[in-house]
Amino acid sequence: MIKAAILGHGTVGSGVYEVFEMNAEKIARTVGEPVEVKYVLDLRDFSHLPYGHKFVNDFSVIENDPEVSVVCEVMGGVRAAYDFTKRCLLAGKSVCTSNKELVASKGDELLRIAEAHNVNYLFEASVGGGIPIIRPMIQCLAANEFNQICGILNGTTNYILTQMIKNGVAFEDALGQAQVNGYAEADPTADIEGHDACRKICILSDLAFGDKFDPEAVSCEGISRITLRDVECADRLGCVIKLIGRAVRCADGTAYAFVAPHLVPKESPLAAVEDVFNAIMVEGNATGDVMFYGKGAGKLATASAVCADMLDCIAHREHRRRISWGDGSQKLLRPLDTFVSPWYVRYQGPRAALEAALPCESVREVGGELAASVSALSTADLKARIAKLEGHVISNMRML
Amino acid sequence: MIKAAILGHGTVGSGVYEVFEMNAEKIARTVGEPVEVKYVLDLRDFSHLPYGHKFVNDFSVIENDPEVSVVCEVMGGVRAAYDFTKRCLLAGKSVCTSNKELVASKGDELLRIAEAHNVNYLFEASVGGGIPIIRPMIQCLAANEFNQICGILNGTTNYILTQMIKNGVAFEDALGQAQVNGYAEADPTADIEGHDACRKICILSDLAFGDKFDPEAVSCEGISRITLRDVECADRLGCVIKLIGRAVRCADGTAYAFVAPHLVPKESPLAAVEDVFNAIMVEGNATGDVMFYGKGAGKLATASAVCADMLDCIAHREHRRRISWGDGSQKLLRPLDTFVSPWYVRYQGPRAALEAALPCESVREVGGELAASVSALSTADLKARIAKLEGHVISNMRML
Repeated sequence: MIKAAILGHGTVGSGVYEVFEMNAEKIARTVGEPVEVKYVLDLRDFSHLPYGHKFVNDFSVIENDPEVSVVCEVMGGVRAAYDFTKRCLLAGKSVCTSNKELVASKGDELLRIAEAHNVNYLFEASVGGGIPIIRPMIQCLAANEFNQICGILNGTTNYILTQMIKNGVAFEDALGQAQVNGYAEADPTADIEGHDACRKICILSDLAFGDKFDPEAVSCEGISRITLRDVECADRLGCVIKLIGRAVRCADGTAYAFVAPHLVPKESPLAAVEDVFNAIMVEGNATGDVMFYGKGAGKLATASAVCADMLDCIAHREHRRRISWGDGSQKLLRPLDTFVSPWYVRYQGPRAALEAALPCESVREVGGELAASVSALSTADLKARIAKLEGHVISNMRML
Repeated sequence: MIKAAILGHGTVGSGVYEVFEMNAEKIARTVGEPVEVKYVLDLRDFSHLPYGHKFVNDFSVIENDPEVSVVCEVMGGVRAAYDFTKRCLLAGKSVCTSNKELVASKGDELLRIAEAHNVNYLFEASVGGGIPIIRPMIQCLAANEFNQICGILNGTTNYILTQMIKNGVAFEDALGQAQVNGYAEADPTADIEGHDACRKICILSDLAFGDKFDPEAVSCEGISRITLRDVECADRLGCVIKLIGRAVRCADGTAYAFVAPHLVPKESPLAAVEDVFNAIMVEGNATGDVMFYGKGAGKLATASAVCADMLDCIAHREHRRRISWGDGSQKLLRPLDTFVSPWYVRYQGPRAALEAALPCESVREVGGELAASVSALSTADLKARIAKLEGHVISNMRML
């Protein structure tokens, strides 16, 4: 009988307990013996639950129990989560997490500690919730260099954009709906300003390129400035607007990484990803494009990914996974100024001026304004041309 | 320096060599040391190649070289491939393959031999080419029971159907195009009659449910009887026609598995999968639906999946993967007669008779015929009702 512990009994933590109960038979079949959750750490009172006796509020009980070989950290945040994760690893316990903030900011250090103590620090659930992405990248696509990663990484913003696109709901109202439906938090900043997606693209970049991509340094633009008019212009250009986390490898091993709303052509498989669903398109230099799709959040989906990591630690407990990346000293992140891409430009002013200033491919008149698709320009070049442009550029976004 | 061997220098085999050359640096970084292909087994003369000196035509050279720890079998077929795979495993060498025919027919036995000799038999490339699916199922979704698997598993038939749907090309002409483009073989039977998809859904069922699903016993219907009129009727009902491999778990642990063309609603992510692309939708009881999408065939895509399996064998060589399924004695496969699903029925005759005989949800008149969507009925029930129906049922298919 394997003993496990859960740190944090919120949405994901209670889901992890539920998955271990619900699929106990399948789990025992998978690892060859039953797995029991021995402790749940939470400061709140859960004594009314059938497993209320398993709750502890003193972390050291778990830390000092040699029977516990694997721990899941689903507390969120970085302070206590960081401290407890480190102490578990130092005590020779593997840790599995859905905590993208911690993995993005301290993953390199925690992976080094795990390696030094011959245990695992696994985080499949930190990107894409229940969608398998971390392990496919590091194992199934191990024989590839990653040319590009391009993903809809945040369900809340995708829900809001879907409401705007499908039902003509304005941003503020769509955000309100998302909050009512439990898809957005009372303070939605981390979602709508792209910080959540940014942590995720950093984790994927760390894995793909082998050195730390600091979320503080990665350019991050959210969706709060997108209007229904932008949605309409995108539609007229054959596109939908999606918040995309992107990482693009350059020939010298450096890479661009950023989060920004993009116009996505309707033919792209990413365009069809709606509501709270996530999808991650990975381009390997041998395998071409592969896409992973599913619910990027949700109690049982995320919990089942954490559980799968725990089962992996148990089934292969004498053998660590080789996962690591550098501390950021390789400085792989390229400034976005030189990143070349086609653009969408929404403009009020004389069409001749617009076409003289920018290499327009297609220009549509939408409600007295002009919506143009512009062929590939660097970010700096676009900005410079716009600065000199007579008339008013209302908005611009990259096109995928 | 790790030494490997490749059995078969066809499309995939030459691709495996190319991936090892092209991504040598990434591969060395992944497993901690360089990997060299020491031998390539092929009876044909490849002495003109830069690596012509590595070719052998006597398998026992590889079998008896203790330096070779991992072998990829990409010969196809079952006779020699089975013999050589078995002998490699018995000699303590791990084997990785893209050979779906061999995995579907002899996988249970070869996995048992691998286990007994503490080596691996891995086959990520056998389903979905370069798309990660096997490993995500057995590792990332390990904490789930699989309720359903539903996939576009064959690129050739999907290309043909896409030509019929998008460009109004008749089946025979679309098949001809597929052959000209190299997507279909001179004898296209295995693709268009669904046998290839059948082997793949059997492998996925073996993994999902833990016992052998015999391709000989699994119901398999191809696309050769689908006409442009069916495509038009499907369109009028809001659907596209796709060849789907399906496995559906029942509460008692038995399962339905079959291959058949289906009407897929246009809103489904599977409907947007076009040309030679594959996609596999997996429904876990905790994680919900996740979908894996990409090119299901192609030299480098398939080769990179085989290489990734080889790297996994190398990186974790003291530790076997736990993969196995039974010999089929559990008899999990349910007869399709009792499988309940909504239907598409194309009919010539009086509408009143059709609506009296079948629980029609929507009926459209298309070119003097009637196309109906029918609510859920078992296969046997549909057949019985059709048998008694006045008029002529021209075709029928399940709806997803």
